[in-house]
Amino acid sequence: MRATYLFAPGDVRVVDVPDPVILQPTDAIVRVVAACVCGSDLHPYRKISPIEHGTAMGHEFVGLIEELGSEVTGLAEGDFVIAPFVWSDGTCDFCREGLQTSCRHGGGWGSKDVNGGQGEAVRVPFADGTLVKVPAGFDPALVPDLLTLSDVYSTGFHAAATAGVRPGMDVTVIGDGAVGLLAVLAARELGAERIVLMGHHEVRTDLGRAFGATDVVAERGEEGIARVKDLTGGDGTHAVLEAVGYLDAFEQALGIVRAGGTVSRVGVPQYTEGPIGRVQFGRNVTITGGIAPARAYIERLLPGVLDGSVHPGRVFDRELPLEEAPEGYRLMNEREALKVLLRPQPLSEGRATLPG
Amino acid sequence: MRATYLFAPGDVRVVDVPDPVILQPTDAIVRVVAACVCGSDLHPYRKISPIEHGTAMGHEFVGLIEELGSEVTGLAEGDFVIAPFVWSDGTCDFCREGLQTSCRHGGGWGSKDVNGGQGEAVRVPFADGTLVKVPAGFDPALVPDLLTLSDVYSTGFHAAATAGVRPGMDVTVIGDGAVGLLAVLAARELGAERIVLMGHHEVRTDLGRAFGATDVVAERGEEGIARVKDLTGGDGTHAVLEAVGYLDAFEQALGIVRAGGTVSRVGVPQYTEGPIGRVQFGRNVTITGGIAPARAYIERLLPGVLDGSVHPGRVFDRELPLEEAPEGYRLMNEREALKVLLRPQPLSEGRATLPG
Repeated sequence: MRATYLFAPGDVRVVDVPDPVILQPTDAIVRVVAACVCGSDLHPYRKISPIEHGTAMGHEFVGLIEELGSEVTGLAEGDFVIAPFVWSDGTCDFCREGLQTSCRHGGGWGSKDVNGGQGEAVRVPFADGTLVKVPAGFDPALVPDLLTLSDVYSTGFHAAATAGVRPGMDVTVIGDGAVGLLAVLAARELGAERIVLMGHHEVRTDLGRAFGATDVVAERGEEGIARVKDLTGGDGTHAVLEAVGYLDAFEQALGIVRAGGTVSRVGVPQYTEGPIGRVQFGRNVTITGGIAPARAYIERLLPGVLDGSVHPGRVFDRELPLEEAPEGYRLMNEREALKVLLRPQPLSEGRATLPG
Repeated sequence: MRATYLFAPGDVRVVDVPDPVILQPTDAIVRVVAACVCGSDLHPYRKISPIEHGTAMGHEFVGLIEELGSEVTGLAEGDFVIAPFVWSDGTCDFCREGLQTSCRHGGGWGSKDVNGGQGEAVRVPFADGTLVKVPAGFDPALVPDLLTLSDVYSTGFHAAATAGVRPGMDVTVIGDGAVGLLAVLAARELGAERIVLMGHHEVRTDLGRAFGATDVVAERGEEGIARVKDLTGGDGTHAVLEAVGYLDAFEQALGIVRAGGTVSRVGVPQYTEGPIGRVQFGRNVTITGGIAPARAYIERLLPGVLDGSVHPGRVFDRELPLEEAPEGYRLMNEREALKVLLRPQPLSEGRATLPG
């Protein structure tokens, strides 16, 4: 089959690899209907050490069950499924607590014997634990919305949920990438009153307004902090959702959060140390968030996607065939695209069609 | 009157100062029945820059209302009251939210025009907002227990409450000072199942066991982390209450906390930067706590003290007349005493007697 591999900085290729096969009785093989490029894929894209045989890319996909191991009980061939961005057994204590990212037997896509999501098919370990079946079945029109549940919508929701966003609360979202914009949507769903979106790409912040942002602040750093404080009577907001990952964004979050409030981080930190001393202590600031257990949110968020009350898939502003994955990376890296959807095959051809 | 002042490292003196007077109609003058020396007083005791006229010390006291401003409505002369370790107006949004440490008009004891607690009397701003009346009136036997509500018991409780300790949870407490020991008590009150106390002063850890610690770990650093992990099936505990304030204690807390768990800090950080990067993010660790709004906890904790179901005052292992405050500092600084209670006057003499 064809799959996307990264070999060196900027060197993404779609290559031939063996078709995945069932290795464990709890496996499934999923034929990928749609995958996408993540902001977090850009970190290795920019700075990976060259790898002779490359590394499989992609951790967000939806698809159709093609084959099942003998012990999979909750899925059937032809089921349309969403894969969260890590796989997990679904049975350990962490999974039962909703922290599937810490599953005792889980792991990431594109690791040994497990394909990346940016390919034609994927061997899925612990299929019962990992995959979420779309009860309504396959609907091509819903693919972009459903695909966001793999990561960006679930991650945005994790930010808002761990920050304890509730009706009437003021929230700031730092970052106008897909996760930041969907954190805006999540904050709105949880009842936030004022939602300040910090970002300076107008097309993106316009989408943020459509998702529920009440204010947009283009300034960053001290100037951005001052602007948000001006908007909030000098106090900042109760919750700050940090969807960037750089130290200056975290510092900005700490400057914006109201005393007694919460900074929730869902941008992968590109730093190891940060300000966490007496200033934060004296203001009773809570720092929470982390890598989102998307699996814990998919079932909760699925109804709103299926009934059309939300359209998180609006973050996809480009769609390319899988073979053009390298162009997808380039577009995102150069910020020409917000988020790129990849289709292994046109809907009208091949195997990614309606089952039955 | 006599009051305790710090002039330079190690130079504590009890000196004559003017008696406090009502300056605002919302003030009260409180005759101090008992005060104490705090672990946090030892930081300036060790490293303050010399001050010619000294700085007033003490932020924990209980006493009797001696005089009231004309606008104080909820208190009467002779009332026995507990002072939290900051004063606050009781009416602003932060106070109403229970974050009196961020009160818009509040401040600390021993600042301009406001006496320290380690003296014979104190001018209390915003008496209605700041002070909590003991409904049962003055009872000499309860003085040590009630005095802990000023700070150390409330602070220990803040650690457990902000960490979300709930029935059945496993908790580690780092630090065998008064706050750490009372964090143990608080964790027990909130229903924690296993409570690991990390400390190596056996007399103190024995008191910790009496307060509810199920395990004591004397080791620190990596060895201490390994010991707690051994006790908890390799995972660490859901909550870690950090009651020390040094960076190595915070690092120890991060090493001990279970994935998805919470580190609550109530030891005043003696650092400005700390590890807050991808490791903590990947494990979904929450960092919370901060300077405790004692005022928010006093009414909640008072019934248990009054009915004798808890005895937080057991942390006081030495009692001295106010005139010996310098010896109290020395004893605590050299760890010869856990916590020193100071009495301005013997109970049988002077004004600190039963009202009426």
